[in-house]
Amino acid sequence: MEKVAVIGAGSWGTALSIVLADNGHDVRLWSHRVDQAEAINTTHRNEKYLDVNIPDQIQAYHDMAEAVEGVSAIILVVPTKAIREVCKQLQAILKEKVTIIHASKGIEPVTLKRVSQLISEELEQYSEEEIVVLSGPSHAEEVALRQPTTVTVSSKNAANALFAQDLFINDAFRVYTSPDILGIELGGALKNIIALGAGISDGLGYGDNAKAALITRGLAEIARLGTSLGANPLSFLGLPGVGDLIVTCTSVHSRNWRAGNLLGKGNKLDDVLKQMGMAVEGVRTVKAAYQFAKEQNVEMPITKGIYQILFEEQDPKNVVEQLMSRTKREEMDDLAVLLNERYTQ
Amino acid sequence: MEKVAVIGAGSWGTALSIVLADNGHDVRLWSHRVDQAEAINTTHRNEKYLDVNIPDQIQAYHDMAEAVEGVSAIILVVPTKAIREVCKQLQAILKEKVTIIHASKGIEPVTLKRVSQLISEELEQYSEEEIVVLSGPSHAEEVALRQPTTVTVSSKNAANALFAQDLFINDAFRVYTSPDILGIELGGALKNIIALGAGISDGLGYGDNAKAALITRGLAEIARLGTSLGANPLSFLGLPGVGDLIVTCTSVHSRNWRAGNLLGKGNKLDDVLKQMGMAVEGVRTVKAAYQFAKEQNVEMPITKGIYQILFEEQDPKNVVEQLMSRTKREEMDDLAVLLNERYTQ
Repeated sequence: MEKVAVIGAGSWGTALSIVLADNGHDVRLWSHRVDQAEAINTTHRNEKYLDVNIPDQIQAYHDMAEAVEGVSAIILVVPTKAIREVCKQLQAILKEKVTIIHASKGIEPVTLKRVSQLISEELEQYSEEEIVVLSGPSHAEEVALRQPTTVTVSSKNAANALFAQDLFINDAFRVYTSPDILGIELGGALKNIIALGAGISDGLGYGDNAKAALITRGLAEIARLGTSLGANPLSFLGLPGVGDLIVTCTSVHSRNWRAGNLLGKGNKLDDVLKQMGMAVEGVRTVKAAYQFAKEQNVEMPITKGIYQILFEEQDPKNVVEQLMSRTKREEMDDLAVLLNERYTQ
Repeated sequence: MEKVAVIGAGSWGTALSIVLADNGHDVRLWSHRVDQAEAINTTHRNEKYLDVNIPDQIQAYHDMAEAVEGVSAIILVVPTKAIREVCKQLQAILKEKVTIIHASKGIEPVTLKRVSQLISEELEQYSEEEIVVLSGPSHAEEVALRQPTTVTVSSKNAANALFAQDLFINDAFRVYTSPDILGIELGGALKNIIALGAGISDGLGYGDNAKAALITRGLAEIARLGTSLGANPLSFLGLPGVGDLIVTCTSVHSRNWRAGNLLGKGNKLDDVLKQMGMAVEGVRTVKAAYQFAKEQNVEMPITKGIYQILFEEQDPKNVVEQLMSRTKREEMDDLAVLLNERYTQ
């Protein structure tokens, strides 16, 4: 039994707290809003985010120092844009070194840094190599209902990854490990771009064939970018790659898909973000990936098209039609770049 | 403008005929049932299979000799189990050598042969290398409505593949080429196993997380088998691999998914096949792949589990639970086999 703190009481933070509580751990769930922490402690519900009862051994906190007092692991589950701010608070509080696990799926625009890099920059005593990421195809709603789910934990530090695996694994929540944190973090972040695209395609009224084409070619281009940055191409085939992509692109639970769907139906980005009311990681990730692609000189036509829809007011229908009508060519050309070699007969 | 014959007037044969007619070709659509051929010619509808109007330049035939008279290409779109019989009839009729394209997604049980191999065995003047396959994420219903769709054509004979690409390509129906016919045929056939599994998972009431895990790990195991047989692992990442898998596993249009769904809800295989009334390729493919895996000594736990549900009356719930509770291990172990190398940090 461990004492652990989950920082961030959104739907995913709450669902992960339930997994940890099911495993017998003493769970402290931190919220940035005092009323939310109080509501969780009195009603054992987190109405806005998740429609389930929260087990008694989850105690909610608004004071971060109290929440992390004496814990052996801290799980960061806040939007990417809040990571630096939360880590700054932790830096001022943390007395002992504990295992840091994060479950955020984004890239910081401008710096183009991954979440584990942001954490190690703000928490002085931690190197990037010690941080663990948890990622995979996992709607919070289903995890909270103990529906079968598989995720991957990854760290350059194998002992930390195995500790995270032991913390979370149970019969319904299966946890695999991987050493390729670069690929896992990039896959988790970049797949949200394709989810936006899948939503746009559906919003425009296109069918499953078009969406499958977009997902497939989207996978090729995010794997191409990831590989150019040093990720293992196989990571994009695993649970945090293809698996997460499928869940995010084909389910109405997915925020990024829903945001894309509203864009495809003709809504403007500002209105969509207002309607959503929750963080839509993909929107910031498109910006970061577009910039990455230019710097790395990687061809990313789908990312570019979505960038044009989001930030240059291009008509979604025109963009999707342009993507579909690219000149005929050997399909494998796109994918061969995955392995940095030409595909030959 | 070419004169072409489409052999098989099911939903996919009819949809491909419509693409060819849209491109200005003279299309002869052969049906094995005289009443169906007559209905198509008089009503320009194919009620049982596809709810669209059929263009006038598609002429239906029941006499195969008339249908193929003077054509430059024959497109075979019959269930895999009918391929030999249809080719035997063609062998007796064909006077000149024409391009043979097939769009069937299966493997022959016992012999474990792919469709291009079956065709070249029955049509004496054709080598396996000359045959073209057309495959990809493509619900017939959407193709018939001119919804955007992408497919791949593949042949060892590049000229034949390019001819097939030219026949079919238009603004809504995008056609890519690949030289890896082995990978394309295996991917198209084996993905139906995973579609049965996805349907079973949904039928049992599991959620999107479980289905995504099953699809992802299913993809790894069919790629592993395909690679052991000589296919390029990248083919499983392309439109006829991941793309087709996504469409087949996440859409109610898919026959294999629907059959799996009924099995997951507790129906017996015989009853399911009766209810479906159309060919369910996946059922025969499971048998073939199970046998393949044993011969090639390839680990295929999902295929084995589905085989046990279909043919050994094992309880679907027990099988899925066993699949989920495999011991913890490095996720990448499964996928590394794709490239025949260990994944190391």
